[in-house]
Amino acid sequence: MSLEQKIADAVNTYIGAFESGDLEAIMGIYADECSVEDPVGSPVKQGREAVREFYQGAMSMGVKLKLESEIRIAGNEAAFAFTGSVDLGESIMRFNPIDVMVFNDEGKVTSMRAFFGPTNSSTESK
Amino acid sequence: MSLEQKIADAVNTYIGAFESGDLEAIMGIYADECSVEDPVGSPVKQGREAVREFYQGAMSMGVKLKLESEIRIAGNEAAFAFTGSVDLGESIMRFNPIDVMVFNDEGKVTSMRAFFGPTNSSTESK
Repeated sequence: MSLEQKIADAVNTYIGAFESGDLEAIMGIYADECSVEDPVGSPVKQGREAVREFYQGAMSMGVKLKLESEIRIAGNEAAFAFTGSVDLGESIMRFNPIDVMVFNDEGKVTSMRAFFGPTNSSTESK
Repeated sequence: MSLEQKIADAVNTYIGAFESGDLEAIMGIYADECSVEDPVGSPVKQGREAVREFYQGAMSMGVKLKLESEIRIAGNEAAFAFTGSVDLGESIMRFNPIDVMVFNDEGKVTSMRAFFGPTNSSTESK
């Protein structure tokens, strides 16, 4: 399988893992040495333990993701725009990041950075 | 004006400058020290002269850009998805990058990286 195909598979696994609440599937796309900066500008989570803790938090909030458009793959990196949503009971919170992932030669993620800020989220009543 | 507003203005100026073929407007968003990696994985154009040459080439091809969705602004960086198109006479070539720009404190671009690959372009007959 080409690196490009591995990268596309990893991103699709990532998006789908939120739907099914599968933390192990998320951790499965990450390399042994990995970091997450989410959002960009916040402290970087370094290493699998810190990364797992971060996603565990997202999972417990019931975050769901939906790709907005095609995955951009260039060299050993990928960028993709998506919408995240969290059901807050009376309302739904949405946020619209662009994630950039860097992959190693085996197609595992060594770094993820999530681009979004105050202008990229909203809350609406159900 | 907040840095966030300066960043949003710079990105909109950038997109609009292709429509009007305004090379100076593009160079106006870049800092004195700047680099462009377009696409990601290709040799980096370092410095204003190399960057200008790159955009001069794009302008001479008549490249037009259209934002696909909202600009993501996080800290001093921005990411945005867009479609580029080039009129080839009998056909239209489209490419769909996500650009990531890093800004200095004055809101000028110090680095631009364009994420797109073979799966992110197509050519269609008119």
